[in-house]
Formats: sequence, structure tokens, C-alpha cells
Amino acid sequence: MTIERPTVIVDPARVRRNIARMAEKARASGVRLRPHFKTHQCAAIGEWFREAGIDAITVSSLGMARYFVDAGWDDVTVAFPLNVRELSIVNALAPRARLGLLVDHADALHALARGLDGPADRVRVWIKVDVGYGRAGIAFDDADRIVALARAVVASGVVFAGILTHAGHAYRTDGVEAIREVHAETVRRMNAVADALAAAGIDGAISIGDTPSCAAVTRFANVDEVRPGNFVFFDVMQWRFGVCAPDDIAVALACPVVGVHPDRGRAILYGGAVHASKESVIDARGRAVFGYLALPAAEGPGLGSLVEEAPVVSLSQEHAQLEAPPEILRNLAIGDVVRVFPAHSCLTCDVHRYYLTTEGERLPRYMRADD
Amino acid sequence: MTIERPTVIVDPARVRRNIARMAEKARASGVRLRPHFKTHQCAAIGEWFREAGIDAITVSSLGMARYFVDAGWDDVTVAFPLNVRELSIVNALAPRARLGLLVDHADALHALARGLDGPADRVRVWIKVDVGYGRAGIAFDDADRIVALARAVVASGVVFAGILTHAGHAYRTDGVEAIREVHAETVRRMNAVADALAAAGIDGAISIGDTPSCAAVTRFANVDEVRPGNFVFFDVMQWRFGVCAPDDIAVALACPVVGVHPDRGRAILYGGAVHASKESVIDARGRAVFGYLALPAAEGPGLGSLVEEAPVVSLSQEHAQLEAPPEILRNLAIGDVVRVFPAHSCLTCDVHRYYLTTEGERLPRYMRADD
Repeated sequence: MTIERPTVIVDPARVRRNIARMAEKARASGVRLRPHFKTHQCAAIGEWFREAGIDAITVSSLGMARYFVDAGWDDVTVAFPLNVRELSIVNALAPRARLGLLVDHADALHALARGLDGPADRVRVWIKVDVGYGRAGIAFDDADRIVALARAVVASGVVFAGILTHAGHAYRTDGVEAIREVHAETVRRMNAVADALAAAGIDGAISIGDTPSCAAVTRFANVDEVRPGNFVFFDVMQWRFGVCAPDDIAVALACPVVGVHPDRGRAILYGGAVHASKESVIDARGRAVFGYLALPAAEGPGLGSLVEEAPVVSLSQEHAQLEAPPEILRNLAIGDVVRVFPAHSCLTCDVHRYYLTTEGERLPRYMRADD
Repeated sequence: MTIERPTVIVDPARVRRNIARMAEKARASGVRLRPHFKTHQCAAIGEWFREAGIDAITVSSLGMARYFVDAGWDDVTVAFPLNVRELSIVNALAPRARLGLLVDHADALHALARGLDGPADRVRVWIKVDVGYGRAGIAFDDADRIVALARAVVASGVVFAGILTHAGHAYRTDGVEAIREVHAETVRRMNAVADALAAAGIDGAISIGDTPSCAAVTRFANVDEVRPGNFVFFDVMQWRFGVCAPDDIAVALACPVVGVHPDRGRAILYGGAVHASKESVIDARGRAVFGYLALPAAEGPGLGSLVEEAPVVSLSQEHAQLEAPPEILRNLAIGDVVRVFPAHSCLTCDVHRYYLTTEGERLPRYMRADD
């Protein structure tokens, strides 16, 4: 396995372990795991989920839905507010899969109903509820609006699937206990909405999902499905939240060393913002950190262990600056390849066209449409 | 021109004006403009430079060098520390173009000299000097090391081109005056290095370049070439530095509106971190801002003007949250397309496979190698 330029390395053993744990937790809890595939965006890795018993997935765009339907998935929820400019993709996929879409406003629903060129009941619609994140969705405490929109969904002829939320504010907390509280509150709020709908004679499922919550709790209760995504790879951010161990991080960016500067305590890596994204975490010293070195750096099986003393402290367009103690820098030379665990695996992976596994296999990924 | 999903829109009139101004400044100063093409990475836009009299360029990777050599450029400097794992590309390009490479350590030079499969003097080597940025390069005040490496370059048989720097610390300043001071200091330090080389009997050119400095000064003196890149498009960051006007920003990300939430003072756009990058600037209130709305939003000629009251205040993987006053939100509907001037155009453009011009033409871009 010769690495010439920045390349994402995937450790299949870690990925399969991460999948197995989440699948087992969902199974033991009696809820459906509908994993979010926006993290890996890879048909081959999708198969590892299928081998773990997964038969329904989540994606973040209609283009990604098409890619996974083409890869044989027939139960796909697009967990993003419906982009009414892409109804041609909805129409292309509706006959081929159980397609779930999100709306939080009647305008989107009506555009969908008007734009469908086949039977309306081939499409399933979820109402997006905001349980406190404050991004998309109808506020959880505005039951009147939610009920009114649900009635409009039913009246439109599309299938009302239920209510769906993403507790993104779990990412703003500072530890596992706070994450569990967000989760408990999310479940309570979604059940209150479901009760209001039931009182109006409308039944639907409850779907929640974010990796911090789903990784932090030991079981799921009072929801029908969970949609975590990042857990397949995890990353520095999730490790800092305390919801994974460093050795659960299943991807690293392999970077050629192009400079070693012992006088500055740094090495320069080929692997910048265009290869890693500019996402960062704040370290104990208050600095933005874009990743941590994995050691041993040998090209070979296994990803190595996270080295907290060796953070990536700066990213330019193509360069990374790795800060490291003398005993590490001493063993680095121009032309070596080192691996870096990314701050946010979803964004790092998104800018690459394929993965290389630790076993040397090349796995192509979804690329956004070119037309 | 129908926009279905996040798309970078380029205004050719603004681009050509930005190119003409920088080219004229360089011409009037008697220095070579070797623009950095990492910002646009587009053969068609390269032709607009050629029409302005440019015949030599800068790129940030060997893959990008290959793309532009294939597009007819025959004088290309790769302004990134030589990645000795890609010498096969060096060997492929050396017979086809005047290829400039960067080294700051004898190890890279020796790997290059060993790895060349043709005459060594087909390759030109620049020594990277650090004038205070603290990233790559030999420190400007370590003349002994620079002279020793220059001697090694000459002895190796490759052509010694000169000394090259990037004053990236211009990006850490707070205004045009401070940027001009960084520039003046850079020129002084590079000339001191050149004097030390001359005293050792080694002649070479002085190459500098960063958009803040090159845009902030009214003329260039005491350098041989300048390599700014971002000025072709500019962006919110450069506007905040004071080195361009809002109406000089020549690219915007067109984003479908997928939600309007007047109660929260926000709209949700399809156009997240994977379409815009996570680069941000800090606004007057201390918040991270990822871009600003351009108005009018009409699909048609021209990019519109920057609306400082309408910042993008949050980016998820696929969502942007646009904060806007009621009079703007009132006129937005699901299914509309709005345009956002990006915080950092280089990174926003890098994640797209093509541009759409305001005239409706589609311009493909370089994509990083897939092998």
C-alpha cells in the first residue's frame, strides 16, 4: 500500500465493531436502527451494515439517496428539509424504494404533492420537530402547528410516517451526563408531540438520532427508531465528548511528511483544509485542534493509538502543522507518512473520493452530482 | 439557468476586473505576476489570466500542476514543500514545462536529485524562506543554512531559481496598515537573504506573495515576482481585512432555501459545511460568520451586493443558518435560491466540481487525483 498523497484510511475491524455495538443496543432495546450514511457515504461500508442486520438507512441529500438506492437499499429517509428543486430525483426514486422525506412547512408539502408524477402514497413524509436545537423543524411546544401540518400531510395523500428530530444541541454540551439529559428531554418532548397527534387521531412513529446521545445511553426507550451516523467512524470530537474511546476512532488521514522543524516543535504535513476540513475542537489549553497523531505510524494493519501530545494546531489550504514532542519529531523524516485522527470524520471523509482500508483495499465513495 | 443544489456562481466581469488590476499593478512595478491558481483551479478561468498577459503560474500541488500543464501552461511553480512521494509526477512534467519546486531541507533536495529520471537542469528549485509566518521554510535570519542549502542545490545540478516566501502572517493582522508593514518587512528580510546568497556567489530571484499584501500595496519594489491567488475572487475575509470592496467579491454560493423561520429570525439554506467549508471570520459581535447574503437574489446577471445584516451564523454538514432581518425573511420562500458570499473563497470553491457563471456557462475545475 503506497500512499502518495493525503488519503483516508479506514480500519474495517473498528468499523464493524462500532456497527455491531450500536446494532446490538438497538436490538436489545427493540427499536429500529436506521443509521445515517452521510458519515461514510460508501456502498461497500453500507454492506458491512447489512451484514449486521440493517435494512433501512438515513441520508442527507436526494443525490445520496439515489446513490444508495442504486446500491440496493430500498428503505431510505432523507433527513434534510425537502429541497423542492430536486423533485425530479424524488420522482425517480419513489417507485424504487420506500422513500422518506422531511417537511416542516406546508409550502414544501404542497410543492411535493403538486410535483409527484406517480401515486402520492409511494412517498412517506416525516414532520421535522425542533426539540431545542433551533435549526430546522417546528418547535416541539407548538403542537397546534404540528397537528395542522400532519393533517395536511394526510389530506395530501402521501403517507404520514411520523415525527423526526435531530437533537443537535447534544453537541453543545460538556460531557456524557449532559448528553444523556438532552436525550431524555428529547424523548419526553417527542412523546408529548406524539400524544398531541394521537389526540387528533393521527398515528406516527418517533424517530430521533445523533451520535452523542445514541452512544451515551445504554438503551433506547419510548422511540421507534434511532438514526445516529458518526458512530461508524467516531472522531476526536466524539472522544472529547466522552462517548467513544480513542481506539474506537476508525478513520485517520494519512499525510506525507514534507517538513520537520525540531526548532519550532513542529512537522509540516501534506494534508490541509482541503483534505481534512477546517472543523476543530478546543483543547484543554483553549486552542483549536484539527486532529491528533496516531501512532505507531507504520503503514500496515491497524490505525494506531491517539497521541494527545501531538495535535494538529494549524491548517492551511494544503498544509497541516503537527505539534509534537522531540522524541516524536526525532523519528520523523521528509517522505514518511503519518496518520492523523480527524476532528470531525464526516467532514474529513466528505472531501475524499475513496477510502483505503488498513488491509489495502480501495473503497469508492459517493460523489455529489455533477449536473 | 436552473439551480437545483448548492452551486458556486462566478461573475466573469468581476474576475476580469480583479485580474486586470493586479496585472496592471505588477506591470507598472516591473515585477512578474505569477498568480496562484489554487483559488480557482479552473482551466477556463486560467485563460482569462492569459488574455491579461499572464504566462507563468503558481499551484499548490503536483496534481494541480499536471492539470494546468495539460491546459497549456508551461511555466509552473508548485508553491508547496516538495512531496517526495510524488516524484513520478515531477518526472512526467519536467520535459513539458518549466517546473519550479520548493525545498527547505537537504533531505527533500537529495530525494529529488536521486529520483529525477532526466537531466537535472530541467527542474528549477526555490528555497522556501520563513519571513515570520512560522510554517514551512528556513528562518530568514538563518542565512548560513539558506546559503548551505543553496550551495547544495547548485551542486545537485538542478537549477537554483531563488528564494520564495509566503507571508501568511499578513492574515493575522488587523487592517491595511499592518498588512503593509508585514509586506515591507517581508521585502527587507528577503533582500537580506538575497544579499547573503550574493555574498556567497549565488544569484537567484526573490518571489513573494499573499493576497492581503499584494492587494494592500500600491506598487511592488525590490522583488522579482509576486504570487497572490485569492484576489481573483476575493471573499468576506479579504473584505474584512480592508483589501477589497464588497463588490470585488466575484464568487457566491447559490443555495436553495429549504426553511424560513421568521420567529427565529433565520432561514435554513441547502448549503452546509460540505458545500462552503467551515472557514469563518469573526464579526463585530465576536461571532463566527461563514458568509453574508448577496442581494438582489434574482437569478440573472451580476452577483449582487453584500448584506452585512444577513450573516450565515451556523453551518452543519448540509445546512446553513442565515440570520436576516424581517424585511428580508418576508421575501424568502421555500424553493427560492439565495446567494452567499463565502468567508474564504479558496476553500468554498475547492469542494465543487464546476462553476456556473452569471452568464449561465458551466466551467469545470480541477479535481484531485483519484489514484
